[in-house]
Amino acid sequence: MNQITRKKVKSLIPIRKMDGHKGDFGKVLIFAGSKRYTGAAYLCTQGAVKSGSGLVTLATDKEIVDIMQIKLNEAMILDNDSNEIKSLIEEADSIAIGPGMGNNQDTFKAVSYLIGNSSCPIILDADAVTVLEGNLDILKGKTNIILTPHVGEFSKIIKVSQEIIIKNKIEIARKFAEEFGVTLILKGYNTVVADKESLYINTTGSSKMASGGMGDVLTGIIASFAGQGLSPLEASLTSVYIHGYAGDILGEDSYNVIATEVLENLGKTIDRVYKSE
Amino acid sequence: MNQITRKKVKSLIPIRKMDGHKGDFGKVLIFAGSKRYTGAAYLCTQGAVKSGSGLVTLATDKEIVDIMQIKLNEAMILDNDSNEIKSLIEEADSIAIGPGMGNNQDTFKAVSYLIGNSSCPIILDADAVTVLEGNLDILKGKTNIILTPHVGEFSKIIKVSQEIIIKNKIEIARKFAEEFGVTLILKGYNTVVADKESLYINTTGSSKMASGGMGDVLTGIIASFAGQGLSPLEASLTSVYIHGYAGDILGEDSYNVIATEVLENLGKTIDRVYKSE
Amino acid sequence: MNQITRKKVKSLIPIRKMDGHKGDFGKVLIFAGSKRYTGAAYLCTQGAVKSGSGLVTLATDKEIVDIMQIKLNEAMILDNDSNEIKSLIEEADSIAIGPGMGNNQDTFKAVSYLIGNSSCPIILDADAVTVLEGNLDILKGKTNIILTPHVGEFSKIIKVSQEIIIKNKIEIARKFAEEFGVTLILKGYNTVVADKESLYINTTGSSKMASGGMGDVLTGIIASFAGQGLSPLEASLTSVYIHGYAGDILGEDSYNVIATEVLENLGKTIDRVYKSE
Amino acid sequence: MNQITRKKVKSLIPIRKMDGHKGDFGKVLIFAGSKRYTGAAYLCTQGAVKSGSGLVTLATDKEIVDIMQIKLNEAMILDNDSNEIKSLIEEADSIAIGPGMGNNQDTFKAVSYLIGNSSCPIILDADAVTVLEGNLDILKGKTNIILTPHVGEFSKIIKVSQEIIIKNKIEIARKFAEEFGVTLILKGYNTVVADKESLYINTTGSSKMASGGMGDVLTGIIASFAGQGLSPLEASLTSVYIHGYAGDILGEDSYNVIATEVLENLGKTIDRVYKSE
Repeated sequence: MNQITRKKVKSLIPIRKMDGHKGDFGKVLIFAGSKRYTGAAYLCTQGAVKSGSGLVTLATDKEIVDIMQIKLNEAMILDNDSNEIKSLIEEADSIAIGPGMGNNQDTFKAVSYLIGNSSCPIILDADAVTVLEGNLDILKGKTNIILTPHVGEFSKIIKVSQEIIIKNKIEIARKFAEEFGVTLILKGYNTVVADKESLYINTTGSSKMASGGMGDVLTGIIASFAGQGLSPLEASLTSVYIHGYAGDILGEDSYNVIATEVLENLGKTIDRVYKSE
Repeated sequence: MNQITRKKVKSLIPIRKMDGHKGDFGKVLIFAGSKRYTGAAYLCTQGAVKSGSGLVTLATDKEIVDIMQIKLNEAMILDNDSNEIKSLIEEADSIAIGPGMGNNQDTFKAVSYLIGNSSCPIILDADAVTVLEGNLDILKGKTNIILTPHVGEFSKIIKVSQEIIIKNKIEIARKFAEEFGVTLILKGYNTVVADKESLYINTTGSSKMASGGMGDVLTGIIASFAGQGLSPLEASLTSVYIHGYAGDILGEDSYNVIATEVLENLGKTIDRVYKSE
Repeated sequence: MNQITRKKVKSLIPIRKMDGHKGDFGKVLIFAGSKRYTGAAYLCTQGAVKSGSGLVTLATDKEIVDIMQIKLNEAMILDNDSNEIKSLIEEADSIAIGPGMGNNQDTFKAVSYLIGNSSCPIILDADAVTVLEGNLDILKGKTNIILTPHVGEFSKIIKVSQEIIIKNKIEIARKFAEEFGVTLILKGYNTVVADKESLYINTTGSSKMASGGMGDVLTGIIASFAGQGLSPLEASLTSVYIHGYAGDILGEDSYNVIATEVLENLGKTIDRVYKSE
Repeated sequence: MNQITRKKVKSLIPIRKMDGHKGDFGKVLIFAGSKRYTGAAYLCTQGAVKSGSGLVTLATDKEIVDIMQIKLNEAMILDNDSNEIKSLIEEADSIAIGPGMGNNQDTFKAVSYLIGNSSCPIILDADAVTVLEGNLDILKGKTNIILTPHVGEFSKIIKVSQEIIIKNKIEIARKFAEEFGVTLILKGYNTVVADKESLYINTTGSSKMASGGMGDVLTGIIASFAGQGLSPLEASLTSVYIHGYAGDILGEDSYNVIATEVLENLGKTIDRVYKSE
């Protein structure tokens, strides 16, 4: 077991190639949002935009395309029924799925399709995690997958009580990552990041950040770093550290921190770690 | 009669449990907004989001769901006709109702339903106060209710002239709180907070804040603190102090203060009180 | 001829009564916007909100009510065909009309109605000025009217070339104000403010502010101060000074200044004048 | 070959005439946006608004007029099928076309029409460049045209591989500008600006800016300066320098820079160059 240190993260943050153009910093594809949840799609997409990605595309429910067009400016938005989705999946450097999609058959189908048809890093979050209940086997051996449950969601899919998970989170996380080969981010107090070979504990962040939408931003950050070339483990370590650290900085003079505030500070937070001694 | 002191409020602001997750900081349910008034719903909902709540849900008129989706990112929004409303009411740690709903039969029905069916703290504001005209008896003995009228609204429901209320506000507020058992926040210059056992005067805030939407923000703050576990009286004292103090800080270099500006500064304002000597 | 001095404006800015509530700081009613122009309606309405008004209502084309609901939070918005318009006009402490309405028969009808039926200060701006072409007589003796043309608009209604107006602006402005009894704000380099008894030149502001929407903000500010109890002349003097001074402060480190930036700084700008020596 | 120096740009930034009004600082007309891409239209239009233009009009797909009305406040917006388009083209001091329009026949028609019917500076960007594939001849001798391809787009229209362009960008850019007589901005690391007589290399900016929407902002800036009276070459030199310099300032304490952040800082960035020694 290791702590995620600033030194470690500093060494992982990609050096932006001087002559790079937007095609060099990752094409991120995000599946998020539904008629009920548009904020989650915004927070996740903008999380990727703000973390250094070259091109971010949100594929979403056609009923909310207009709302997302109003909310977003840098990202592209398209109806997730459109013909181009397949080629976008093929070209993507990373894919995130889940925020605000709803736990339903469509979400499960999309998750299955991605797992079966894409080899780039794929982040499964929120409803894209909970739809795995009873279907965990499709994860087996998929080393390109990152799962980001909080304890409640994790409890649902592994059918172990939250209390037991909290008491034994390191062992349980390690076992899960070993069994399935995926990278697991078990969110909560001292977030655990595990893949089949290693396990890390995050120490940034605090309960000031415990509020709706915060996880959606994290998913966007992971997708961004994975799209910039980090491995699933590297992207996970970097992102949970940065996300928590953004909250720590903001929390220095605030009682609590909301997701939008973390978004706004991502560029500066990454820079602070990148330039730290 | 007591002043609400900073020391008092500092002692009431909840210490955020280090390992708390968003479920630990309150599920707030807000009924607000109508085709005519969408800003009120925004200001109230975001007031709760910004004051440390874990999860905030806005239940609103189905005709403005899209507009509210555009305005809000952290909160969940749903049509107040949807089936889930009942279970959301059951699960809520606090409920606010009124801002921008209109003084009409639907508002009265919703208020009656909540009073009859929920035992968590319920904040009645704006139209949820004025619909009580002639129906005050439904408040009797409801110690979980907080009423937040300004003098004009209070005049309407107790059928006493504004002039008389202003001259005798402490006595009238005390009597009302004793008679009905609710917590009363009588807003205005030197806002009075009374429950059946005690009465406090607030000294933060100023007429720089006397503008549309300011009360909606206050309602969101109260809902947030009540949802974080404070009693109706404690949440009321904390919120009127913080709300006014946010205005005081902003008013140091501004001729006037608008509701959106108070919103933006809530996290920092609470922190300042929380860390004060 | 007088310069509008900071000392003068400082003396005019209303002292906000300590125990005032939102009803004491003016009910402002704004007629603005059309399918083509929604930004003008936003900038004018928010100009009033940000200058200390208690309650601001925008009455606008029913086709853009939803768009305006999305843009605004503190102001109330209603369809200008609704039944309440008449009573809102009666209760208004000041009325502004014109920004983004279009030069058409409806605008003229609305202007005529207001001039004939309201005795509170009425600000005519933009299309509410140009529709007066050929109809100037309806202004006669209306001391509650403020007209805010720029030179191009003024040229149209008085049928004098822009060149001649620019060369003789003081004389022409004075004559117009004397003839009609209204307060005239002739906008441009060294804006002139004249009523039938006096004439002032403004020296704040610069061509950094010469851009679309800037006049709409000014109209909102005038409506706000008039609604707070200043006379047409006083509101005009105060507002042109504050508006220009906001631009001067912003222009200290910016090549140019846009309308939204002036909006954001109104509260602080008024405070700076109010507290100046 | 020359570097674009700060001294050069400082000398080109227009001195704003003290008594200028909004009509004196350029009428900019922008054709941008489509159902799929609304952010591009926003970023380009606001880029012009923020760079000192007097009046900016966005002509866009009628299906997104409402969305653009929500996003923008200072600019005017109209349906690009409306009758007034022709007179707006005639009155325009500069025109930009392309961001978010889609590579389709309508875009080509619009580009052709503008090239054939307008003599003011015209900036062709994004899809307005790629539609020229196979049609480059319509550019011949059009000294009022500015083309702003990145290497990928340039490769498409001149049918030379990106690798060869990158290795020989100065020679290829010079030859293109000489052959067609247009001003070429070949975007990328060390952006090249060439017209038939001269060639410049830009040294501001960095790969921190390599992200979606950044080029749309640049197009708006160029349109703004061209509309303020700079020649195509002058407007190009000034704009690429300012755009990159805004990114440099923002990048001082941020890992990356997004398009919206550049927008926000344009006025201050121009001022910093304008006032530099």
